[in-house]
Amino acid sequence: MRKDFGAKPWIYPEPVLIVATYDENGKPNAMNAAWGGIADDTQVSVCLSPEHKTVKNILASKAFTLSIGDAKNLVACDYVGIASGNNTPNKMEKTGWHFCKAANVNAPLIEELPFTLECKLISYDEKTCRCWGEIINLSVDEKILTADGKIDMQKFEPLIYDPCNHFYYKFGEIAGKAFSDGLKLK
Amino acid sequence: MRKDFGAKPWIYPEPVLIVATYDENGKPNAMNAAWGGIADDTQVSVCLSPEHKTVKNILASKAFTLSIGDAKNLVACDYVGIASGNNTPNKMEKTGWHFCKAANVNAPLIEELPFTLECKLISYDEKTCRCWGEIINLSVDEKILTADGKIDMQKFEPLIYDPCNHFYYKFGEIAGKAFSDGLKLK
Repeated sequence: MRKDFGAKPWIYPEPVLIVATYDENGKPNAMNAAWGGIADDTQVSVCLSPEHKTVKNILASKAFTLSIGDAKNLVACDYVGIASGNNTPNKMEKTGWHFCKAANVNAPLIEELPFTLECKLISYDEKTCRCWGEIINLSVDEKILTADGKIDMQKFEPLIYDPCNHFYYKFGEIAGKAFSDGLKLK
Repeated sequence: MRKDFGAKPWIYPEPVLIVATYDENGKPNAMNAAWGGIADDTQVSVCLSPEHKTVKNILASKAFTLSIGDAKNLVACDYVGIASGNNTPNKMEKTGWHFCKAANVNAPLIEELPFTLECKLISYDEKTCRCWGEIINLSVDEKILTADGKIDMQKFEPLIYDPCNHFYYKFGEIAGKAFSDGLKLK
């Protein structure tokens, strides 16, 4: 038997995306966005309602970074999704995060978050809340890389959001290898 | 130190989305799509290139279901991302999956996959490969629910894709509760 939940915007896994921007004075801001991800081989899209300080900043700076929330930064990642840069002037100070300019776009890099897509604004549509960005570069802290330069999931510890129960999860065990070509199909 | 990877379309976690459709004769098809997710509180978006059988089916039927790949169905979920419905007439038979009509849209429900968004087509853009769907209903198999009707993550076992290393992961331990209001911030 199946149960109908109605039109719920739930998906598993849901990412924890931290969008960081500069305001018109070069002051960094960051927020947590759940509804977004890779849009195609060179683009991201994120749902950002127009009242966000982040949206004002993106429209002015034409750029943003998209970092992945990780277990080490769980509290700060959660906090930037609750507090607003519109009415919390010291929002970023409270996170304890350090910012530097991203190498390739006019947006801040959060030094504590090891995995960051540097993006240029393609378009923002106030009606659909859809922000499209072109991926210019993926910047990864070497501390989460294996000796041969790949992402080490155990060092990275990206967060996963559970939209039904409101928990953050870590990645668990490997379930299998992709592109197995269905060899074990019955 | 950080390492530049260039314009990589990588995100963590990446979902394993199984898009199921009917063709013009009512025959079910399904494929695995990695680049998609929740677009806003009532919509999903998925990147589907126009040559897919799935796209032809969606344009004709105006509907699709979006199910979440789970550990129990890993091999079949992986397989439907490799084989094409255009040149593999028995693609669905090989999965071992059973199909019934979704209750609310003109698209098949895969009985083995317990978590399914029933969606009506809003629009498809061949140029951007973007398929937008309106979430009509979330249909969940009771076997992955807790006694009080919530999603039980241990019963569900949704897959997570690792786009750098090409592994599927399971969810791991709970890292923390959302909306903690930054109580533990320094």
